[in-house]
Amino acid sequence: MKHTISLLVENKSDALQRIAGLFSGRGFNIDTISVGRAEDPSHVRMTIVTHGEDRIIEQITKQLHKLIDVVKVVDLTDMSFVNRELALIKVSAAEDVRAEILQIVEVFRGKIIDISPKTLTVEATGSEDKVDAIISMLRPYGLKEVARTGRVALKREFQGET
Amino acid sequence: MKHTISLLVENKSDALQRIAGLFSGRGFNIDTISVGRAEDPSHVRMTIVTHGEDRIIEQITKQLHKLIDVVKVVDLTDMSFVNRELALIKVSAAEDVRAEILQIVEVFRGKIIDISPKTLTVEATGSEDKVDAIISMLRPYGLKEVARTGRVALKREFQGET
Repeated sequence: MKHTISLLVENKSDALQRIAGLFSGRGFNIDTISVGRAEDPSHVRMTIVTHGEDRIIEQITKQLHKLIDVVKVVDLTDMSFVNRELALIKVSAAEDVRAEILQIVEVFRGKIIDISPKTLTVEATGSEDKVDAIISMLRPYGLKEVARTGRVALKREFQGET
Repeated sequence: MKHTISLLVENKSDALQRIAGLFSGRGFNIDTISVGRAEDPSHVRMTIVTHGEDRIIEQITKQLHKLIDVVKVVDLTDMSFVNRELALIKVSAAEDVRAEILQIVEVFRGKIIDISPKTLTVEATGSEDKVDAIISMLRPYGLKEVARTGRVALKREFQGET
């Protein structure tokens, strides 16, 4: 099952390596990770998406709790949470297909942030599914480069029935 | 000096740990990192922002080149590139300040993605400076939680004079 884990961590140089090591030590792949400054600038918030057996992920989160520098660990998976990601997509865009591409970008409310005679670079934001969808729509034109942030997520303030 | 390094890496479970280790082994902090699937889904693209002595960062990028699983390393720092990040910001928003907060969010073209009687959760995208600015404007109201993706970046197709 896919898990979204949010970590609040002291901003130290070896924290990321030790956290990544806890996952890879058990053969777990980190599907995506985003690390940026948290509300208190002496901390970073890491959002990790991983998948695998629930029991093992529970063990990993318990071990994350014990790591020095880790302030807080929340597995958001069973909670109601908001999540978004951002992608930059550079796509081949010769003149004869440019209008089609612009139409796709408009449907997904993306933005063109760079242009050249043969390419367009698109900024897209949304859920992973939405970003997957725009990438799938643009793939046939020729993807030159894609840079995705991976998911960031925050617990919803109201936790309704799920 | 601040560096933005873009890495194309095979999607393997221990790649992140080894890459993070190269930085922390030299006492270098990774300021932000974003990892997501690249144009070829068997690869991930990592965007790393770090700062420090140029000479040492050059040594690190040379060593990154040599790591198994690392397909491509580009230090974008001296190039022209587009860059964006995304932030989710949960801010205290009692009734008497809600209108003010909504105004700030509008100026920065943010979006409200969750609401409760006492909080608003805002999605903001843009350059690091822009995201810093909206966070600074919202901080006085009381930041509950901030999750930032860190920077993603792609080389501009046209490399003009810089």
